[in-house]
Amino acid sequence: MTARIIDGKIISAELRARVAAEVTRIKTDHGITPGLAVVLVGSDPASEVYVRSKHKQTQEAGMASFEHRLPADVPQAELLALIAKLNADPAVHGILVQLPLPKGLDSTAVIDAIDPAKDVDGLNPTNAGRLASGLFALTPCTPLGCIIMAKQVHASLEGMNAIVIGRSNLVGKPLVQLLLNENATVTIAHSRSRDLPALCRQADLVFAAVGKAEMVKGDWIKPGATVIDVGINRTPSPDGGKDKLLGDVAFNEAKEVVGAITPVPGGVGLMTVACLLVNTVRAASAIHGLPKPAV
Amino acid sequence: MTARIIDGKIISAELRARVAAEVTRIKTDHGITPGLAVVLVGSDPASEVYVRSKHKQTQEAGMASFEHRLPADVPQAELLALIAKLNADPAVHGILVQLPLPKGLDSTAVIDAIDPAKDVDGLNPTNAGRLASGLFALTPCTPLGCIIMAKQVHASLEGMNAIVIGRSNLVGKPLVQLLLNENATVTIAHSRSRDLPALCRQADLVFAAVGKAEMVKGDWIKPGATVIDVGINRTPSPDGGKDKLLGDVAFNEAKEVVGAITPVPGGVGLMTVACLLVNTVRAASAIHGLPKPAV
Repeated sequence: MTARIIDGKIISAELRARVAAEVTRIKTDHGITPGLAVVLVGSDPASEVYVRSKHKQTQEAGMASFEHRLPADVPQAELLALIAKLNADPAVHGILVQLPLPKGLDSTAVIDAIDPAKDVDGLNPTNAGRLASGLFALTPCTPLGCIIMAKQVHASLEGMNAIVIGRSNLVGKPLVQLLLNENATVTIAHSRSRDLPALCRQADLVFAAVGKAEMVKGDWIKPGATVIDVGINRTPSPDGGKDKLLGDVAFNEAKEVVGAITPVPGGVGLMTVACLLVNTVRAASAIHGLPKPAV
Repeated sequence: MTARIIDGKIISAELRARVAAEVTRIKTDHGITPGLAVVLVGSDPASEVYVRSKHKQTQEAGMASFEHRLPADVPQAELLALIAKLNADPAVHGILVQLPLPKGLDSTAVIDAIDPAKDVDGLNPTNAGRLASGLFALTPCTPLGCIIMAKQVHASLEGMNAIVIGRSNLVGKPLVQLLLNENATVTIAHSRSRDLPALCRQADLVFAAVGKAEMVKGDWIKPGATVIDVGINRTPSPDGGKDKLLGDVAFNEAKEVVGAITPVPGGVGLMTVACLLVNTVRAASAIHGLPKPAV
């Protein structure tokens, strides 16, 4: 069987183009420029790269991009004061605090301080609750990207049997809610689940979000299933060369069985920033009482 | 096979006795009397009966019981003003607005207005979000009762395959979160699920919460499984006599197959008020910064 490779590069570029079109429309029709503020505390090199990429993509989509950099030893109160300022700033529709925060800062308190209407990372419990209650919510970007990728293969997920492996607040749990909104039947499995291979083999849709390199084997997968691999596991190369990035799924085995699969790298990871832009457009529309955007 | 009948009358009485013991302890050690306020709008006869039962059981547990009755044509603003007063009242630790509200009143706005710390019905999206995020939350009473009943049969639910049939905000969705907290593997099925009988037959624990009389048949159930039936469906008697109450599970068929099952009536329904008292004690403890109560 020749598996379809679900290409994150192409899909995220299409999504960004759709965001840019919506931004143009909102500017023209309503005179509003959606704005995203990113707060970076300290100078973790990986975070620096990520924040630069966000900045670039935000500007390319025609949105306003605001960057705030604070030293690693910033007092919690000062960080919270910045968030309060951004909450009150009408030019800012989305606020993202780059995680993890340096030691000594309380991430939970910082996330709680973000106005839920501007919480484009979807991590605020208010947004989790609104999502769980079927209300309008800003949802975490990675699960949003997973749904968009699955829907590249299946126009409707209704009635499909989906398994979500992993139950984190960031990915697994919101993904379950999004799948329920799509009318899929959802099983949530995790480290305490018995006979995970057998559970997995029943699923038409497999979402792997455990953070263990190549844990999901080829023979765990129902022939023809669609596999969305959220894992990005940095793994030392056996020959001492450059580290490799591996997914949670054993890709080479799986691609002989699946109908469609996302690669790592080049899969879900590329969707995250694009989904952040989607959330910022959705937040701006909701804040200004505009109709739901077409993205 | 002789099924064990999970008796709501006995279990709820035991639970109320444990609540009463905790109330005595909190009064003695901290001088605090947990208090529950119930708001009844209009005069629906079924609601009247239910509110009277709550009042009686609250007092029997040694707690303070406050009743507020408003006419069916009360303006929304007046109802919200009462909630604001109860939110601010230090003698009140739990607020329950009896649902459904008469036409013309906006239930969502009323539920949102209740201080999440006093939301003993667990319906506020903030509590749904805290539950979904694994934080301390007041959880809806019926799913809480379901977990307590399942744990009468299995000391631990860890690693068990559970199915929740029905995805309401009131029962199905919070039940999924509570089952995840117990480390069960959870499948959520609903009206759009394909081949529900086959999905159901894989489960060690079946939670039926769909509101359709006797929808779950005996041959849907894995031999020896534990079945918790949330449904209470009023059904006309075939001989024109008094209406019958039927569960979502075909009890007579199921009892030949299951290991244990809750009856209807006499099952989950009896747990609801007892769980409301549990939530009030938990709310009072959290509001006053006391250690988590033993109930």
